[in-house]
Amino acid sequence: MTLTILGCHAATPKTFHNPTSQLLDLRGHLFLIDCGEGTQVSLRKSKVKFARVKHIFISHLHGDHYFGLIGLISTFTLLGREADLNIYGPKGIKEIITLQLKLGKAWTNYNLIFHELDSKSPQLLFEDEIVEVQNIPLDHRVYTNGFLFREKPGERKLNLEAAVAAKIDNSYFRKLKTGADVTNREGKLISNERVTFPPDPPKSYAFCSDTAFYPQIIPQIKGVSTLYHEATFLEEHFHLCEKTKHSTAKQAAMIARDAGVSQLILGHFSTRYSNLERYLEEAKPIFKNIQLAEDFKVFEI
Amino acid sequence: MTLTILGCHAATPKTFHNPTSQLLDLRGHLFLIDCGEGTQVSLRKSKVKFARVKHIFISHLHGDHYFGLIGLISTFTLLGREADLNIYGPKGIKEIITLQLKLGKAWTNYNLIFHELDSKSPQLLFEDEIVEVQNIPLDHRVYTNGFLFREKPGERKLNLEAAVAAKIDNSYFRKLKTGADVTNREGKLISNERVTFPPDPPKSYAFCSDTAFYPQIIPQIKGVSTLYHEATFLEEHFHLCEKTKHSTAKQAAMIARDAGVSQLILGHFSTRYSNLERYLEEAKPIFKNIQLAEDFKVFEI
Repeated sequence: MTLTILGCHAATPKTFHNPTSQLLDLRGHLFLIDCGEGTQVSLRKSKVKFARVKHIFISHLHGDHYFGLIGLISTFTLLGREADLNIYGPKGIKEIITLQLKLGKAWTNYNLIFHELDSKSPQLLFEDEIVEVQNIPLDHRVYTNGFLFREKPGERKLNLEAAVAAKIDNSYFRKLKTGADVTNREGKLISNERVTFPPDPPKSYAFCSDTAFYPQIIPQIKGVSTLYHEATFLEEHFHLCEKTKHSTAKQAAMIARDAGVSQLILGHFSTRYSNLERYLEEAKPIFKNIQLAEDFKVFEI
Repeated sequence: MTLTILGCHAATPKTFHNPTSQLLDLRGHLFLIDCGEGTQVSLRKSKVKFARVKHIFISHLHGDHYFGLIGLISTFTLLGREADLNIYGPKGIKEIITLQLKLGKAWTNYNLIFHELDSKSPQLLFEDEIVEVQNIPLDHRVYTNGFLFREKPGERKLNLEAAVAAKIDNSYFRKLKTGADVTNREGKLISNERVTFPPDPPKSYAFCSDTAFYPQIIPQIKGVSTLYHEATFLEEHFHLCEKTKHSTAKQAAMIARDAGVSQLILGHFSTRYSNLERYLEEAKPIFKNIQLAEDFKVFEI
């Protein structure tokens, strides 16, 4: 699982600061999370084959999280896209997009499938054999969801040496990976554990932006591999959190600690701070394994 | 009058190609014409004090001409703008913008004044003591206007030497600039022409994009100082003009020639061509004084 940060700054796009967008590459799936203005250009800069994006998740209807969506949808049309595009976002997003397509007489030539969200509890948004995606209800000035991506357990790994020694025919190797016991050439039943290794533990990724400090999310994100949590403010602006419904770096670290996640990525930085190291200084005493998001940085999860 | 090209490329924004937007600086007025995705970032790169923009003209509701508008409006709010903002554009633009402000619970803290256009003939859109602005109805796939900016004649210029020699008191100099005759210290009437020079001839700028070849615009833009005309295609793609309602470089040059303009700027280039010099090669045999638009280039008019 790799996460490419396309933008991680709050409020307005600037010359060297992109608003929120990120791309999660999960065993071949490309999930786009949020889509601030200019995201399609960032996707090009990242050399992503963005026609492969089939699912876009929009956290909330503030501009720095979705103003680039209509442009990306239009560009897909110009590029001759044929594959379905699924959009998950707050109720109202369909009206915004379709109004603009209608007035521009520019309907897409592919299926645009809206999954409008208004639930205040976690729902299963997407599932296939390798991943499931849920919304994470957050606490912001408008209806907002984070998103939780959970890999399903992969196949067991063949211990080739042991399998050969146990005289298992190659035609059974596929079956071994599914976890089944098989019979060897001598008619003897071989237990799966003897000739396979367990699969890598499934990875998970939780995206939580924008939100005030909201410990209610902890049960849902318990133990995830990586948590991206917004940290708009440093402590000196703690007093702005309540009104704006944003978090400080310290609050993000408290969520990470209490949820027992493996790694925390901080993002959604206010552009008022020039020295981002201060985020680490304030958060690290609470939770150790923290990294700062950075436009175009790629994280292995 | 100076024209800053913020973007001059057709279709989708790319790493080094911005969609249409330009800024006309006319004796202190900053008029923004079209506002493709990323325009606010281009304005920052151009170091324009963009809070000074009070009038935005949108030609039509295709994304490459207006998807950056909602972001710019939102950024003005974040920057604490107080001055009114006037938006001139096709009917529907108000609904697009207000729907997004409403769903984001993000009303502007300044007056946003929409002037929705649906006339198929030229109208006076804005006028003050130094400029008047009209729409130029064009021929495109959706309802589209170009815009014509005409400076009003300036004041006459004082011929200081002649005025002193004619024994005119300084207190009359202001009156002389308005074109009036005045009485000198000896009670003699001095004709204005004797002691002033005529003002610089008023400049004018016509923006015509997007449009098919449409000679009906010629009477309205007759003799303008500078014409910006779209030239999406080269001759090899002439066959695409009818369906897409775009022009070739040659057609733009024919309009410039027949309207007797002083200077032609070509723009709205299809990104399929890597060598833009070919536009000049095809257009120059028809009209000589041509320049190619270029993102961030500044033209003196």
